[in-house]
Amino acid sequence: MKESELLTYTVIGYIRTPFNEKAGIPIQSSISKALGTVNLLPQYSEGLSDLGDFSHIYLIYHFHKANEYKLKVKPFLDDEERGVFATRAPLRPNPIGISIVRLISIDKQENKIELQGVDMLDQTPVLDIKPYIPRFDNFEARTGWMSKVNSETVRKKISDNRF
Amino acid sequence: MKESELLTYTVIGYIRTPFNEKAGIPIQSSISKALGTVNLLPQYSEGLSDLGDFSHIYLIYHFHKANEYKLKVKPFLDDEERGVFATRAPLRPNPIGISIVRLISIDKQENKIELQGVDMLDQTPVLDIKPYIPRFDNFEARTGWMSKVNSETVRKKISDNRF
Repeated sequence: MKESELLTYTVIGYIRTPFNEKAGIPIQSSISKALGTVNLLPQYSEGLSDLGDFSHIYLIYHFHKANEYKLKVKPFLDDEERGVFATRAPLRPNPIGISIVRLISIDKQENKIELQGVDMLDQTPVLDIKPYIPRFDNFEARTGWMSKVNSETVRKKISDNRF
Repeated sequence: MKESELLTYTVIGYIRTPFNEKAGIPIQSSISKALGTVNLLPQYSEGLSDLGDFSHIYLIYHFHKANEYKLKVKPFLDDEERGVFATRAPLRPNPIGISIVRLISIDKQENKIELQGVDMLDQTPVLDIKPYIPRFDNFEARTGWMSKVNSETVRKKISDNRF
């Protein structure tokens, strides 16, 4: 068995959100109205230039409360165990999360990005920020087990949550 | 200045692609027809269950030839310097790439995922794999400097490339 290679990254900022515990977090940013803020570390401030003209951005971040991983998980929207790579569950071999959120404004003086649609825990460490570009990022796609989860179920599960 | 926190991840596999050098790589997976393969390390094989029913997946990977970072970069599709977080350029504080690629088939015995639409260098280390779900991932969005790059420019720039 090939030995695993390790990669080390630097946290570039932290996301402030209204969510202090896992229960009640919106399951996807696309259905969250919650407001949040990225506090970028000041040494990366210059990298924010031109970002304010985009309406949506990807946040790539660390699931900092995921302390173990599972290869089979029961997704929030399903009752069957699924391979973890066929889900967005946090308990992944590398606990990296991706959310597409709405950019409201950038305060370059304070290195803050104001956002809507956050779906992660407060104080989540940020690894990267990228622009969302429909021309490159929108696909028609088949969605496996998710296609059996109808909109009604999503609405129901969401209405049980606070946001 | 708050001291930076470090995070360490484990490479879970490697992507085989036709691209041995940076010149000629498709600028986005959405406009690449190139075939590739993820060779997943065998210890993660079980995590592939149920993934084969999805037509598109996110690959989250390491830009392994990006040895420095810049906060201002000149994107491939533009002649002006832009903040790195407003681009998809590889020379980022954390050289993490995201591509949405088409899943052709999975060989669970061999831990291989056959793909179309690869846009990264051969032997790129993989950090994570997630399902692409239009219901969560498609947004109407404003695209800042990118909106001034018209389809003609994209086509022209692409036709200069090999794929």
